Amino acid sequence: MSHKPSHELVHFLEDKANEIRILSIECTNASKSGHPTSCMSAAEILSVLFFNEMRYSNDYPRHPSSDRFILSKGHAAPGLYSAWCAAGLFDKDKLMTLRKIDSDLEGHPTPRLNFIDAATGSLGQGLSVGAGMAYVGKYIEHASYRTYCLIGDGESAEGSIWEALSFASHYKLDNLVAIFDINRLGQSEEAPLQHNMDTYRKRVEAFGFHTMVVDGHSVEEILKALAEAQSVKNKPSALICKTFKGQGSSDVADKLDFHGKALNNLSEKIFGEIKARMHGAAEQPRPKIKDDAPELVQKPIAFKTPLEYKLGASIASRVAYGDALVKLGEACDRIVVLDADTKNSTFALKFKNVFPDRFIECFIAEQNMVGVSLGCGARNRTIPFCSTFATFFTRAMDQIRMAAVSQSQLNMAGSHCGVSIGEDGPSQMALEDIAAFRAIPNLVYFYPSDAVSACRAVELAANYKYMTFIRTSRPATTVIYANDEVFEIGKAKIVKTSAEDKVLVIGAGITLDSAMKAHSSLLEKGTSVRVMDPFTIKPLDKEAVLKHAKECGGRVITVEDHYAEGGIGEAVAGVLSNADFITKHKILAVREIPRSGPSAVLLDMFGISANKVVDAVLDMVE
Amino acid sequence: MSHKPSHELVHFLEDKANEIRILSIECTNASKSGHPTSCMSAAEILSVLFFNEMRYSNDYPRHPSSDRFILSKGHAAPGLYSAWCAAGLFDKDKLMTLRKIDSDLEGHPTPRLNFIDAATGSLGQGLSVGAGMAYVGKYIEHASYRTYCLIGDGESAEGSIWEALSFASHYKLDNLVAIFDINRLGQSEEAPLQHNMDTYRKRVEAFGFHTMVVDGHSVEEILKALAEAQSVKNKPSALICKTFKGQGSSDVADKLDFHGKALNNLSEKIFGEIKARMHGAAEQPRPKIKDDAPELVQKPIAFKTPLEYKLGASIASRVAYGDALVKLGEACDRIVVLDADTKNSTFALKFKNVFPDRFIECFIAEQNMVGVSLGCGARNRTIPFCSTFATFFTRAMDQIRMAAVSQSQLNMAGSHCGVSIGEDGPSQMALEDIAAFRAIPNLVYFYPSDAVSACRAVELAANYKYMTFIRTSRPATTVIYANDEVFEIGKAKIVKTSAEDKVLVIGAGITLDSAMKAHSSLLEKGTSVRVMDPFTIKPLDKEAVLKHAKECGGRVITVEDHYAEGGIGEAVAGVLSNADFITKHKILAVREIPRSGPSAVLLDMFGISANKVVDAVLDMVE
Repeated sequence: MSHKPSHELVHFLEDKANEIRILSIECTNASKSGHPTSCMSAAEILSVLFFNEMRYSNDYPRHPSSDRFILSKGHAAPGLYSAWCAAGLFDKDKLMTLRKIDSDLEGHPTPRLNFIDAATGSLGQGLSVGAGMAYVGKYIEHASYRTYCLIGDGESAEGSIWEALSFASHYKLDNLVAIFDINRLGQSEEAPLQHNMDTYRKRVEAFGFHTMVVDGHSVEEILKALAEAQSVKNKPSALICKTFKGQGSSDVADKLDFHGKALNNLSEKIFGEIKARMHGAAEQPRPKIKDDAPELVQKPIAFKTPLEYKLGASIASRVAYGDALVKLGEACDRIVVLDADTKNSTFALKFKNVFPDRFIECFIAEQNMVGVSLGCGARNRTIPFCSTFATFFTRAMDQIRMAAVSQSQLNMAGSHCGVSIGEDGPSQMALEDIAAFRAIPNLVYFYPSDAVSACRAVELAANYKYMTFIRTSRPATTVIYANDEVFEIGKAKIVKTSAEDKVLVIGAGITLDSAMKAHSSLLEKGTSVRVMDPFTIKPLDKEAVLKHAKECGGRVITVEDHYAEGGIGEAVAGVLSNADFITKHKILAVREIPRSGPSAVLLDMFGISANKVVDAVLDMVE
Repeated sequence: MSHKPSHELVHFLEDKANEIRILSIECTNASKSGHPTSCMSAAEILSVLFFNEMRYSNDYPRHPSSDRFILSKGHAAPGLYSAWCAAGLFDKDKLMTLRKIDSDLEGHPTPRLNFIDAATGSLGQGLSVGAGMAYVGKYIEHASYRTYCLIGDGESAEGSIWEALSFASHYKLDNLVAIFDINRLGQSEEAPLQHNMDTYRKRVEAFGFHTMVVDGHSVEEILKALAEAQSVKNKPSALICKTFKGQGSSDVADKLDFHGKALNNLSEKIFGEIKARMHGAAEQPRPKIKDDAPELVQKPIAFKTPLEYKLGASIASRVAYGDALVKLGEACDRIVVLDADTKNSTFALKFKNVFPDRFIECFIAEQNMVGVSLGCGARNRTIPFCSTFATFFTRAMDQIRMAAVSQSQLNMAGSHCGVSIGEDGPSQMALEDIAAFRAIPNLVYFYPSDAVSACRAVELAANYKYMTFIRTSRPATTVIYANDEVFEIGKAKIVKTSAEDKVLVIGAGITLDSAMKAHSSLLEKGTSVRVMDPFTIKPLDKEAVLKHAKECGGRVITVEDHYAEGGIGEAVAGVLSNADFITKHKILAVREIPRSGPSAVLLDMFGISANKVVDAVLDMVE
């Protein structure tokens, strides 16, 4: 299939591999920390990719049509930086700033660098991102760029790798190449399969990849395997590369106890050994980018038709989420929607029914769904919305955390929040999600309370640069906003107010319903309360909280279908604790593990029903 | 190998399968919700397990020596309840209380029931739990009980299943049987591999299991495969059962759109069809428990020797964690320690060096590590401590959430928290873990600030009934407590105090160090501050916060190596917002995505150094 490569090419690539080795050692020497031995095992792989296989441009590393490379084993960052340095993207002086406070060449790669699409360093996440890029390249853009992902053997124990392999073969991503750097050694001991190449081969093959076992220190074998991968149709390919950690140094290669350590004291001898193997070969040509993925300019996205809900109607916000996705899909052809086999519950199904070509079923693998979404959104090729039950997004907490480091545009919609889901019981109830996701930097946390606000949350999310989480509810709630009501991120709505209000009640979703009902009951008893819908829990409308708390005599009750810690109550407390007046603040929240039962009974049993709000108000004003 | 089973036995087991089918439909009819079709596919599997294979006692379902059964596909709970009902554990009237508010027969199984070891319902988690039980049975207890886990095909897309398979084969758990119910249909569409039995076989075989493809509706084939599994040594076994969702009903079997729906309107016809296939066979004997795992009585655990740290010495709390594990291991032979290839960083290695037989290396698969730990602790057979970088515990957030529903005793120690880890950069920095894990019900969140308090946190954790999280730090901090200082859960320490204190400063870990240094600098400037070490962030010592805040004129500064949302600051705000005096509260926390650099520089750059505390205090008192 592939003819034998020339001596000149082989020598050139061997030289480049050794140059990457030396640079990796030099820059980690300069920083006195880092993972040089993890780079040394991958030197030939990086050399062949960067100097023969991949199409890219130093002038524009994130060119829409250039091949993608994801370093899933992010701790080999010095190797990646050295490859780009050797390729001429920046000079050696810059490389030597590795890990310095004013350098973007950080310990693990982040998109602060113009050649990184996704931050890595939490292991096992890169292949999902690569699969998302490959999916978009093949099915959305029909472009010729290819995606390469370098994976360590230690991180192959992460289940997310196998989720991604399964996804990639299911969708026949023949533009994706997974390269496993099997260097035998983990951080604290041998990786579980050591150099059992046949077991790796069987596993990856069973997961549907065209799988080739390769000597990872032979540029000829790597060249041959990558050429073979280019010719395979309707199947992704995998190279299982047998390598040695610390390869290139007789003192270090294949030895434990050198993980994550600079080699300062040993490097003179190492450099001697490596340089003795260099050929001084002449530069060889690299392939050119095939320019078939267009430049995209992100423009503001607005629904093309008005909303048509009836005030007072009963509609679950998860249903409105589905409606809004369809409207978004009509407004912008780069919207893609992903779900984890819950689309008939989250109502992402509505989008699939209208735009089947832009819907990606990810099956029950939430980590991979988030990673694929991130890949879909990389280089702004699409605007992804992914959905499952809100509580199952906690399965992808680490991916979501890393997506923040990646500065990704990524929209998540979690349905079935809180005890209000009813009979399915605590395993299906999201009660920690506000706490967990509110801590994610730059994330906007929407918690719409009716159909109109749910739709507007989706529309705002599509226009937001970083991550969003939209918490939708299972039970129907009353439409309380006019279809043309304008919503803003960080702006609360006051839904009930009078000059006599004694207490500010803040609720969201089903508990805004509790608050509204409490408002009516209390009015009958002669007590007036103000009711606030925060709309976004992060950012919280601090000015509105302070203003209305003050107008209500400092008395505030928050009520939420979530555990007490890290939820709406504490977000509000974080504002009130610095008020210049005395505040009385009661947090109504779920405070023990709930159980199965009817939604309304559970709301009352766990202290967040209208009755409980009434009790708390009366207790506070007495 | 196995002789052919008698007609009587086959007919009996077929009858029991159909009884389970009918009961599953009846109880979901009564609750008008649930997943009967997911039970119908597993009826023969449950019948053979409960009426021929498994050794258990209705008198004592959690008998130390009885076989374990984990329903990983937790939505088939009605099938499991029906099997126990058919086995005589409780009567049919009780079964018909399924999903009612006052019934412990919830939508998904929880250990509120005396026959459940681990809550399920978030998919893909059961096999890790089973592997932990099997590991303890084989290596810690050397007992003969076996562990069976029933897994759905939809949930086999979860990577955690493959982490568990890999772990189980690595440790040759021949007392573990994974049973895959391949019923072809997911919730919203076909499962990705449908009835591609050969692909399942290849995958599971490649992951090291003795793998048998079985007609899951043939009790004879299931009997034969389970017998074969009993004879396989040094390998776990797997049954890949080809089944049909809704099997037993010609209207429902193998059809989409019946997932999670009661069959009320169809059930008369279904019952007719099923009953027509019943034999009226006579009861057959079941195997007896082999009583070789002892009853264990948990007694208070205390270190046998005093701590020997020097006041003023510099020791990282992660190092003290390792020291404390060794002391625990000496005090109690049921302590087991698990780690995810970070043991030389978390210092769990210290325990392995002394007690190698009670150390379980879980490699880089945090979800599985948490699940295995939960399995180790089930039925109180051991007291598990597991560790990795604090931020990588977010990978197991969903498992941790479910462990709370399981009411597990599970101790986690997360090292390398916050920006203070330095050059490795944001991917390795735990900055969301306080928010995420503080929301877990009943969890105690320890954040020790020196070596002595770290050791006492470990000792207290070993005696706590539910979950704990111990946040340890990478940099060394000063030993500030005497070796005999007594610590309690929920009791803060005042480490600096005077009658003139103007501000209460609360810090923990590295930021307690910031607070102490700020205290000294401020004293030189003539300003006195009180310094509090909360010791546990959950429960927080609310009384102490209020008392000392009041004594400091309502002025409070919290400083934490964590994002602002859901951390120490908001926990404190949740107390101050209900104080009966005006409070001025400044939250010093990390407020943007950090970067690589020296630890001390990062503390200052992200606003949580001693200097920043000094500035905040001076600003507040002016």
